[in-house]
Amino acid sequence: MSSPRDVVGQRSETVRRANLSAIVRELHVHGPLSRSELVVRTGLTRSAIRGLIGELVTANLVEERRSLPVGTPGRPSPVVRARADQSVALALEANVDSLAMALVGLGGTVHRLERVDRPRAHETVDEVVADLVDLARPILPSLDADALVGVGVAVAGVVRRSDGVVRHAPNLGWRDVPLADRLAAALNLDAPVMVANEADLGGLAEHRRGAAVGFDHVIYVMGEVGVGGNIIVDGRPLVGAAGYGGEVGHMPVNPAGAACRCGSSGCWETEIGERALLVRAERDPDGGRAAVTELIEAAHRGEEQALAALEHVATWLGTGLAVLLNVLNPQVVVLGGVFERIHPLVGSTIEEATARRALRPSAELVRIVPGALGADAPILGAAELAFEDLLTDPAARLRPRAPALASA
Amino acid sequence: MSSPRDVVGQRSETVRRANLSAIVRELHVHGPLSRSELVVRTGLTRSAIRGLIGELVTANLVEERRSLPVGTPGRPSPVVRARADQSVALALEANVDSLAMALVGLGGTVHRLERVDRPRAHETVDEVVADLVDLARPILPSLDADALVGVGVAVAGVVRRSDGVVRHAPNLGWRDVPLADRLAAALNLDAPVMVANEADLGGLAEHRRGAAVGFDHVIYVMGEVGVGGNIIVDGRPLVGAAGYGGEVGHMPVNPAGAACRCGSSGCWETEIGERALLVRAERDPDGGRAAVTELIEAAHRGEEQALAALEHVATWLGTGLAVLLNVLNPQVVVLGGVFERIHPLVGSTIEEATARRALRPSAELVRIVPGALGADAPILGAAELAFEDLLTDPAARLRPRAPALASA
Repeated sequence: MSSPRDVVGQRSETVRRANLSAIVRELHVHGPLSRSELVVRTGLTRSAIRGLIGELVTANLVEERRSLPVGTPGRPSPVVRARADQSVALALEANVDSLAMALVGLGGTVHRLERVDRPRAHETVDEVVADLVDLARPILPSLDADALVGVGVAVAGVVRRSDGVVRHAPNLGWRDVPLADRLAAALNLDAPVMVANEADLGGLAEHRRGAAVGFDHVIYVMGEVGVGGNIIVDGRPLVGAAGYGGEVGHMPVNPAGAACRCGSSGCWETEIGERALLVRAERDPDGGRAAVTELIEAAHRGEEQALAALEHVATWLGTGLAVLLNVLNPQVVVLGGVFERIHPLVGSTIEEATARRALRPSAELVRIVPGALGADAPILGAAELAFEDLLTDPAARLRPRAPALASA
Repeated sequence: MSSPRDVVGQRSETVRRANLSAIVRELHVHGPLSRSELVVRTGLTRSAIRGLIGELVTANLVEERRSLPVGTPGRPSPVVRARADQSVALALEANVDSLAMALVGLGGTVHRLERVDRPRAHETVDEVVADLVDLARPILPSLDADALVGVGVAVAGVVRRSDGVVRHAPNLGWRDVPLADRLAAALNLDAPVMVANEADLGGLAEHRRGAAVGFDHVIYVMGEVGVGGNIIVDGRPLVGAAGYGGEVGHMPVNPAGAACRCGSSGCWETEIGERALLVRAERDPDGGRAAVTELIEAAHRGEEQALAALEHVATWLGTGLAVLLNVLNPQVVVLGGVFERIHPLVGSTIEEATARRALRPSAELVRIVPGALGADAPILGAAELAFEDLLTDPAARLRPRAPALASA
């Protein structure tokens, strides 16, 4: 089924822009492709592909190289690739216990990626903005203003997508922080700054380049101090009416549960978040990544307390996943952050708990797998966010054309 | 953000079919429109609209009538309307305590609608199929085979969309019933039979013709013996990987809750379903619609026990809605079935419980409203399901054309 919004009248200029977008997106996501492969992937004719690639070469978005013959008869098809040097995204991440910066080229080439731990103290917004700018500063002088397509920012909070305001970040202690505007002013770059929730972006990266490639119905659940999620429906991220969707960490799952920093109680996060795990294992709840590493190593050695804490988290993780399976009927669940790390120890407990609570048809269909991108999934997703405008309408980077005549 | 699947290369025949679909869909959903209004709504040129309408008139899908002048200068624009007599859908519903049949014309005209109560016994599949066919029998002789676009079926269970198999219907006692095939054989009509979950279809109807018209992010929750839901994301129904999505009634919400017919325990349905409501009010749990009516009347009279039962259901309804708000960030929640009926009594309790458990940004944004279509929402949605193929590709009903030359 589809809604009235699916289909609207289409004009030739709209079609041209959509076709340019289809080509750039294929090259960005899948890497270099021959013209023949582009014909197959886009459904466009060979002559149409040739013309459109010509436009994209002129705009420095792609380049063509003659491929080496590979034993097939006939002329080799030129290989088209995105120019990672001519279009770059700056990505930033404000996490509860680390900050990160990356420079990523069109096509997904990671030119640079740096992460610094920070004390689990609640820095002020001013301090976080200043620290992020400091982290990016070494590369700013070399950034070609024409090449920079945008700045993507991952943050551990609920974000209004339209203007990049962090509405509520319980684990940072922020409310209604205009982070996009603050960073735009501090960076002073001639490029848009877009902000999104870190788990949304981690899920985007796993969908595009990680464990969920090729799936159209995906749930990504990421555990850190907070628990976040990202949902892919019919191949598209579910962001909701204002960008607040996917806040799975604050699903009420236990009416008898503990108070949550969000103001409610019994949220999923209070049972499966990093602090809950550490407290249950009688570790320092503010021990951060190092404490989790120690805990996991202890569990591998067979320490009872550590194993019991992991089993508790795994059981509640499965219970919450059952909620999501029944509502969303995904093909795959990707576990990120701390859940990715504990999956080798308690994967079967997670699966059993999920199957016990979910309807059988949905439980039978799904695969529950660890993520493929590790802790860098959110910042790689932030770069993808920054590329999104370019991918949607690369024609905006071309020289202006006379308007085409409209036709049906 | 959008994914690589959003955009693909487009050819002129694809565009023509999409434009025919856009016109028929607008007329089906919104009713009669002038050519000028179609120009605005589809973005197509006036001459393109003229040509496409000509094709649709020839195919008996639409008709044009000269409108009366309404005081504006210039020639009146002809009014185009869907032909409700020339394209009809047969809709059937297999509910826990009633069966229903409807005949609906393109454009939404309800030619006929009948509902019969049935005892809350578990009839066999054979009996349900025979009873549905009996219900439809009076109209079968008069059905023009050319006019019948399809048969849509609403059922209280988890349905695999691809082949109309009811995978699991706890409250009917069914597992893996090939309902589409069974009904196709029994009806013996030259039209496809499509089956979907009743709440999915109720939500579709409320979105297209009821309380959720114009919203792109909707949650529909329907209470009967079972509790079902339908989710609209970005204007489209969320059906999930295999059509099992929206099973909100089986979200585990209470770890200490009662056993559920699905095999799990503490499902939302065990706290807010019709049986839970009746048991808590010390009524006959199998009393059905009549018992619920009596209970609601008692509550209006101020009977404490009835009011307390409604408050309990309203509080748990709000708790589960908070789960859905945090995950989906909808603009509107539409309450159907028994929840539509109790909303005037406990609407504020539902809202308070939701706000207490949901993240503030999502809670502030949403409106929680009763449905507009009453108990007939699912069967009206079943008719919409039957029309879907025609709406998506009305060109399939036109005479074959020579293939158009492909172009970019």
